[in-house]
Amino acid sequence: MKLGFIGTGLMGGPMAARLLAAGHEVAVWNRTAAKLAPLLEKGARRADSPADAAQGEIVMTCVTDQKALEEVLFSANGVVHGKARLVIDFSSIAPASAREFSGRLSDKGIGLVDAPVSGGVAGAEKGTLVIMAGGKEADIERARPVVMHLAQRFTRMGESGAGQATKLCNQVIVGSLIAVLAEAVRLAEATGVDATKLPEALKGGFADSLPLQIFGARMASRTFEPPLAAASIMLKDLDNAAKAGPGVAMPMARTAADIYRRMGTQEISRVVEATS
Amino acid sequence: MKLGFIGTGLMGGPMAARLLAAGHEVAVWNRTAAKLAPLLEKGARRADSPADAAQGEIVMTCVTDQKALEEVLFSANGVVHGKARLVIDFSSIAPASAREFSGRLSDKGIGLVDAPVSGGVAGAEKGTLVIMAGGKEADIERARPVVMHLAQRFTRMGESGAGQATKLCNQVIVGSLIAVLAEAVRLAEATGVDATKLPEALKGGFADSLPLQIFGARMASRTFEPPLAAASIMLKDLDNAAKAGPGVAMPMARTAADIYRRMGTQEISRVVEATS
Repeated sequence: MKLGFIGTGLMGGPMAARLLAAGHEVAVWNRTAAKLAPLLEKGARRADSPADAAQGEIVMTCVTDQKALEEVLFSANGVVHGKARLVIDFSSIAPASAREFSGRLSDKGIGLVDAPVSGGVAGAEKGTLVIMAGGKEADIERARPVVMHLAQRFTRMGESGAGQATKLCNQVIVGSLIAVLAEAVRLAEATGVDATKLPEALKGGFADSLPLQIFGARMASRTFEPPLAAASIMLKDLDNAAKAGPGVAMPMARTAADIYRRMGTQEISRVVEATS
Repeated sequence: MKLGFIGTGLMGGPMAARLLAAGHEVAVWNRTAAKLAPLLEKGARRADSPADAAQGEIVMTCVTDQKALEEVLFSANGVVHGKARLVIDFSSIAPASAREFSGRLSDKGIGLVDAPVSGGVAGAEKGTLVIMAGGKEADIERARPVVMHLAQRFTRMGESGAGQATKLCNQVIVGSLIAVLAEAVRLAEATGVDATKLPEALKGGFADSLPLQIFGARMASRTFEPPLAAASIMLKDLDNAAKAGPGVAMPMARTAADIYRRMGTQEISRVVEATS
């Protein structure tokens, strides 16, 4: 299929590479053109603009924030001036912005699926991302054959914005859980337990999770290198969650957000030092 | 091997049954003798007293609380008046009590392994419990061949009391996570997401866990029957965790405990109603 991919960074790069490997024709565009090189080597076509990347049937976006997304979609050289009739957006933005962009694209006869991802760079490389989608049923089914090269799971969660809202739910769980794991590690250490054994000892039980195995292990051994994520990034997600659901009190997520706010840009596993 | 099992309730019953099925001679005792019937049918010997249950090499205990444990161990007909030289205690009690009982048993030449379990009745029946142990290395290795009939995992976490302390870490994680899941479900509902799809959509990702699949699913569909656990039981564990680690602040676990305190004896999945 003739596809376009806009935003070929840490996540978008390996995702676009998987589409090429699957035999699709992919036109790529990135704000920093140097990042395109590895994809061009794999046979991608270098697009001159977001509009040029949108000459195929479907164009995908994976950019930093909603400002960047608005620009690649609606600027003078934006996607709206291309031929693609479906945009799949893998960026993480506010649900309200996804709904707004969906409306503006719809006016031009273009569908938008908001499809933020979970699973990190490793998931992007292996095609095992978990992708939560919002949008019209027909648009999501049109997106599915393409997305299945990238994800182990691609679930329609509701109308436009519901994918982004689900990503916020995901972050509420993960961000709060990481703060909880710090407390469990500190409790273990204070009570004569070998905390480095916690991930293995609790594996397969009710307390087990990927964050326990990854972040819990790093906390117990005070391993903060290489950095996995900054507390400030998680804080942004938790603050967005609070804004997205103004009627929902979320005392647990708020307590976690308060801790991350004090941590600034520190590696998030250092939360084990920030809880006393 | 000649074994004894004291406390054949919801958890202890199926555990003792597994030991019988594995070919061990098991003497059983329970405060409510009627609960022994299914085990006697399977070939267990009915002991007259805890001391009588402790005529074999190893005696196991699985009772409600530390008061019950103290009685079966140290009363006039208690384990200390039997022949067993090793007690494996599967009950959940305070780490400090485990250390105290270990000292008192040690004075009589009896070893104690504190070995609280996680995995529920299903885990007890299938022999897939996760068991966290504290005590002398030699005692834990003596216990291992017996315990392996009951558990998928039996990990020495440290000296006496460390098994109980690890169980409290487990409960800090599980108890806090369940409160977090309630917030994620409420956020989903407030933002147009089909919350009943969350467990499936997030499966295999960073936000996944057994509590998401079990309690998250119950919360999203407002299914509170059959009851799985009372908020008050989880509260007891979280309060014990706070007592066990007085220097550890645990703001997340404290926030969860405050919610459960307001819920009283309600089914714990109703936390989705208790967070607003």
